[in-house]
Amino acid sequence: MTIAAITPIRWLVNSSSNSWLEQAIARPQELLIDHAHCERKAAGAALQLMFRYPSNEALAVALSALAQEELMHFDMVLALLQRRGIALRPLRAPPYGASLMSLIRKQEPLRQLDAFLVAGLIEARSHERMALLASHHPDQELSNLYRELLASEARHFGLYWLLCERYWPRQVIIPRLEELASAESNALIGELAKPEDLRFHSFGVNSP
Amino acid sequence: MTIAAITPIRWLVNSSSNSWLEQAIARPQELLIDHAHCERKAAGAALQLMFRYPSNEALAVALSALAQEELMHFDMVLALLQRRGIALRPLRAPPYGASLMSLIRKQEPLRQLDAFLVAGLIEARSHERMALLASHHPDQELSNLYRELLASEARHFGLYWLLCERYWPRQVIIPRLEELASAESNALIGELAKPEDLRFHSFGVNSP
Repeated sequence: MTIAAITPIRWLVNSSSNSWLEQAIARPQELLIDHAHCERKAAGAALQLMFRYPSNEALAVALSALAQEELMHFDMVLALLQRRGIALRPLRAPPYGASLMSLIRKQEPLRQLDAFLVAGLIEARSHERMALLASHHPDQELSNLYRELLASEARHFGLYWLLCERYWPRQVIIPRLEELASAESNALIGELAKPEDLRFHSFGVNSP
Repeated sequence: MTIAAITPIRWLVNSSSNSWLEQAIARPQELLIDHAHCERKAAGAALQLMFRYPSNEALAVALSALAQEELMHFDMVLALLQRRGIALRPLRAPPYGASLMSLIRKQEPLRQLDAFLVAGLIEARSHERMALLASHHPDQELSNLYRELLASEARHFGLYWLLCERYWPRQVIIPRLEELASAESNALIGELAKPEDLRFHSFGVNSP
């Protein structure tokens, strides 16, 4: 199986709902600010893994490149915010990230496997939602931005997948990925209580 | 005063000793491994500041670029380690970093000023020691590496200086920088107990 064959979207149990997409299109400013935070957080998560496994050179090579790319995307989104006069401000994080983090097992080496899979699933969901926005956003500049970032998100998922495969046999990875992918979709079942809580990883998936 | 006029070395109270330089040249492997960790830690510190002040766009623009550059340097040093067959491994950190961090005041906004100054002083010391290695290292590949990285370290010091100046009048910055610069040099007074503790920021400065 090549990276191309393991498209990120394939691993998502539930697809994002029209309701999420409609709200995301209706509130581009919140989504852009959240997007900037997501890119920065993704860089932080990659760096955190580098520090946790300081001797792992393959990990360091892969994650240093990933963190640099996430920061370049942060720069792109921030520049767009600035061109539009939208101030960067903290946003309340949706429950999604914390609920996935809580599933990472505490003991090594399982902790590492779970960390890779959770990071990969978050990239997969980002990819799926960016693809929706790239196809449907009526704002041309934004749909172009999402289209430009799409390929990277897919590569990032592939990178975490390759890291799993480097250290684990597929018969260990696949069942755990299936469990975590179910949890990932379950974390998105629900509706926003308040429209200002619209986020890249806020509620809104279809029933399976 | 332009950045060129505030050369990092000017702010260091004590210059590094011949004894540090001799040990650094005698133990290139430890120094390279420590160097890789330093670049990674510098990226982590920049990212940490971005997360601590999530709305500060000027900071985000400057520190995202800085973190990317530190990670590129990490990649360069790791590639050199790999070409030489030297494994990346954790090293005990010298007391230097923790002793400087302990001087950062806990209350904002002073905490931010101190964080910028401490980060700048660490860059300044890195610059001073890389300049020594660039001039004196008999290993041509290593002296070239240090020469290549020199200019960046000076720019990084300048960047933290500019961030200070953006938010503080010079009459507040200078006295605090003088205090912290004294502490920085004092943190390096002493001799290594064991040669394997040789680090980029290990003991070894001249008397003032």
